[in-house]
Amino acid sequence: MKKITVLLLLQASLSFSQTTDEQMLKEIYKSALTDSKCYSWLDDLSNKIGSRLSGSVGAEKAVLYTKKELETLGLDKVYLQEVMVPKWVRGEKEIAYLIHGKKKVSFPICALGMSVATPKDGLTANVIEVKSLEELKALGSEKVKGKIIFFNRPMNPEFVETFHAYGSCVDQRSSGAREAGELGASGVIVRSMNLRLDDFPHTGSTNYKDIALDKRIPAAAISTNGAEALSKLLKENPNAKLFFKQSCKQFDDVLSYNVVGEITGKEFPNKIMVVGGHLDSWDLGDGSHDDGAGCVQSMAVLEMFKKLNYKPKNTIRAVLFMNEENGVKGGLKYEELSNKNSENHIFALESDSGGFTPRGFSIDADNTNFDKISNWKSLFEPYLIHIFRKGHTGVDIGPLKSDKIVKVGLQPDSQRYFDYHHAANDTFDAVNKRELELGAASMAALMYLFDQYGLQ
Amino acid sequence: MKKITVLLLLQASLSFSQTTDEQMLKEIYKSALTDSKCYSWLDDLSNKIGSRLSGSVGAEKAVLYTKKELETLGLDKVYLQEVMVPKWVRGEKEIAYLIHGKKKVSFPICALGMSVATPKDGLTANVIEVKSLEELKALGSEKVKGKIIFFNRPMNPEFVETFHAYGSCVDQRSSGAREAGELGASGVIVRSMNLRLDDFPHTGSTNYKDIALDKRIPAAAISTNGAEALSKLLKENPNAKLFFKQSCKQFDDVLSYNVVGEITGKEFPNKIMVVGGHLDSWDLGDGSHDDGAGCVQSMAVLEMFKKLNYKPKNTIRAVLFMNEENGVKGGLKYEELSNKNSENHIFALESDSGGFTPRGFSIDADNTNFDKISNWKSLFEPYLIHIFRKGHTGVDIGPLKSDKIVKVGLQPDSQRYFDYHHAANDTFDAVNKRELELGAASMAALMYLFDQYGLQ
Repeated sequence: MKKITVLLLLQASLSFSQTTDEQMLKEIYKSALTDSKCYSWLDDLSNKIGSRLSGSVGAEKAVLYTKKELETLGLDKVYLQEVMVPKWVRGEKEIAYLIHGKKKVSFPICALGMSVATPKDGLTANVIEVKSLEELKALGSEKVKGKIIFFNRPMNPEFVETFHAYGSCVDQRSSGAREAGELGASGVIVRSMNLRLDDFPHTGSTNYKDIALDKRIPAAAISTNGAEALSKLLKENPNAKLFFKQSCKQFDDVLSYNVVGEITGKEFPNKIMVVGGHLDSWDLGDGSHDDGAGCVQSMAVLEMFKKLNYKPKNTIRAVLFMNEENGVKGGLKYEELSNKNSENHIFALESDSGGFTPRGFSIDADNTNFDKISNWKSLFEPYLIHIFRKGHTGVDIGPLKSDKIVKVGLQPDSQRYFDYHHAANDTFDAVNKRELELGAASMAALMYLFDQYGLQ
Repeated sequence: MKKITVLLLLQASLSFSQTTDEQMLKEIYKSALTDSKCYSWLDDLSNKIGSRLSGSVGAEKAVLYTKKELETLGLDKVYLQEVMVPKWVRGEKEIAYLIHGKKKVSFPICALGMSVATPKDGLTANVIEVKSLEELKALGSEKVKGKIIFFNRPMNPEFVETFHAYGSCVDQRSSGAREAGELGASGVIVRSMNLRLDDFPHTGSTNYKDIALDKRIPAAAISTNGAEALSKLLKENPNAKLFFKQSCKQFDDVLSYNVVGEITGKEFPNKIMVVGGHLDSWDLGDGSHDDGAGCVQSMAVLEMFKKLNYKPKNTIRAVLFMNEENGVKGGLKYEELSNKNSENHIFALESDSGGFTPRGFSIDADNTNFDKISNWKSLFEPYLIHIFRKGHTGVDIGPLKSDKIVKVGLQPDSQRYFDYHHAANDTFDAVNKRELELGAASMAALMYLFDQYGLQ
C-alpha cells in the first residue's frame, strides 16, 4: 500500500513537473517569437555599429552598446571584464592578378587575419598549386623556395554537416602560411572556406606560431570562383606569375572587454550557468551570423527570464566574449577571473554557429549528465529540436575547466553557414528573424531545464 | 537448433539488408551533393524561363524544357499528359493609394489570383478594416455595402511551424472576396500571407465559387508593411478613401500538360510510385521555391537512380503537375488518366514546401504502413532527417485515391517559406544549392526504401 502511494505521488509529481516544464517552454518560445528584442539588437549591432574586429572602434562601440542594453533589462549585475586583445588592421584593399601573357587577370582576395603584409609594392612570383599540407611538404624546400603556394583543396560537399567539411579543410588556412614559409615560399594564397562557388574571399586567422616576425610570409584567401579560375589558368600557363599586394599590420595589444550581465541565483548564487557568444567579428561583413547572432541570443535569454519573471535557482550569466576570432583572449580571461574569484561553474552554453534554425545541442558532459539532458528531448519535440549528441561546444567556453561542468553548443542548421562565414556577405539581411528567435528560445529552454534539475 | 539457425539466418539477412540500405542511402546523398543537375535545372527554369503561371508562355516553355531534360536521362518513358487549364492574366501593374487629407499615400499591392479587375479607372471607396471573416459577417450588409474590406489579420508568429500559421490565416485570401462580395462590398484588400514585415505583396488564389462573374468584386493583396501603414492611417482618419486599380482578366481555358518521366519496374511494372512537384508557379517571381524546387528534385530522383544504376522493382514515375496554383487541373487529370488506364498506385511523394533543408516527411498512410516507414528513421539519422509524422502531403497527389496507397509530403524547414511564397522575391537566389540537393536525396532515399520493402 505504502509503495503504491509513493508511486502515485511520484507519478503525480512527475506529471506536474512535466506540465510545468511544458508550459514554461511554451512561454519561452512564445516570448522569443513575439516579444524579444534580439532581432532589433542584431540590427543595431550590424547596421549601426558594423564589423567588430578586436581592437577596432566597432568592437569598442559594441561593448558600450551591449552593456547599455543589458542595463535596461533589470538584471542584478552588469559589468565589464578588462582584457588585452590583439589589434590587427587590414589596411588597403588587397589586389591580386595573374600575369597571363599580355593580360592581367584579377582575382578577389583578402588578407588572412594576423597575416603580415606583402612588400610595399606587392609580391610577384610563380605559383605552385597544392591540395594539402602533405603535398606541400612532399615538394620540399627546393621546389617551394620563392614561390607563392596556392592551397586549393575545396571543402568536401559530401559531408552532410558543413562543419565537418570545414574541419577537414581549414588546416590550409590556419597552417598553410607557416608550413610554406618554413620551406622558403614567398607567399600563400588559400581557397576560401566556402562550399558555394562565388566571388567572396573569406578571411579567418592564420597561425604563424613562434616564427619570427621577419620570417613570416603573407597569406591571403581567394574566392572560390577565383580559385577555380586561377587553377584553370595555371594549367594553361604553369609559368604565369601571380602578383598580390596587401598592407595589413599587427599593432600592440589594446584594452578591450568581455561584457557580462547576470541574474543572481535565488538558491545557489554561487553556482553559475553561463550563456554566451562572441562580440568580436571579422572586419569584412558586419558579423551578423558570426557571432552577432550568438550575442543577441544570449542577451535574449536574460531578457526572457526577466519578462517571464523566472527567478533562477542558480546564477544565470550572459557573457559576450571579446576576441574569439584571433586570440580567444576573452575566453581565457573569463576563465582566469573565474578561478581567481573561486567561482563554481556548473553549466556553459555557447551559440557560435550562426543564427539559423536551431536543430539541437552538441554536449560535452559525462554520460550521466549527457543522459539526463537527452531525456529532455521530448520536451523539445514541439519545437523541432531533435539533435542531442556529444561533441564540440564552443571556443569561448573552451577554457572553462572544472570537475563538474556541462558544456553545450547550440547546433543550428549548418547548410548556409559557410556561404557567409568570415566574408563580406555576413550581413544582417542574411539572418532570418524567426530562425534567430527560435535559437534564443532553445537556449533559454535548455538553461531553464538545467537550472531546475541541475547537475547529476 | 533449427529455430536458432533460422534466427541466425534472419539476423544475418537483416544486418546485410541494413548494410545494403545504409550503403544505398550513402550513395544517394553523395550523388545528390556532388553529381546532380537539380540546381542547374532550377537555374534554367528560374532564370532562362522565369514565372510559369498556367496558360502562360513560361509554362509552355517549362513543359518543353523539362521534357527535353528528362529525355536525356535514359528513362524508359517520357511523355506529356494533355490537360486544359485556366488562363488568368494579371495585366498592368496594380496601383493603390489612400487619399489622406491632401496627400495620396501609396501601397504595394497585387491582384489576387483569379480576381476580377476593378473598373477601368479604378475603384475608390471608404475602407473597413476587419481581422476575420466572422468580424465581417457581424458587420452585416448595411455597413459593408459599397466599402472596401481590408482583411488585416497577421499570420500568428507563435506557431513554430509556419504552415500552421498560414493555414489559420489564409481564409481571408481564399474566401474574403466571396464573403465580402455577398455582403455588398465593392472590393477587398488582404494582408499578405507573410510573417515578415516587408514591401512584397503576396498573391495566391481567391475563390469566388459559384458567384456570377458580374457579381464578383476585385481582390488584391497588400504587403505586410503596407498593411501596417494602412491600418495606422485609417485609425487617424477612418473616413479616408482608398483607391485601387487592377486590370487582371480571365480567359478561356487553354491546353497545357503534365510532364511525365518513368523508369519501368523490373518486378512489378504495373505498380506505380509517383514523385512530383508542380511546374506552374505564380507570375510575380520565378517560382524557384514554389515549386521549381519540387520539380527539379523529382527529376533528380530519376537522375540518381539512373546514375547509380538502380533498377527499381516498381515503376518509378516523376510527374511535373500543371496548374496546382489555380485549379489543380493537372493533379485531377493525372488521377483521371490513372483510373482510365487502371493503374495501380502504391506510393506518391510530393515536394511542394520549398527547397529548404529537409527535416522529414509528412505521411498519409494506415497505421501499419506508417509504422513501417517510421521504422526507417534510424537510416535517415545521419542525414538529419527526424520528422516522420502523419499529416498533409501534397495538393497535386491529393486526388489520387486507392484502398492502398501511401502518400508522403517532403517537409523542409519552414521558417523562411512565407518570406517568398507567391511573391516577387521567390527567385533562384533564395534557394541554397545544398539544401535543394539534400531534399532531392531524402526523396530518393525514401523512394528507394519503399520500392524495396513496399506496402504492408
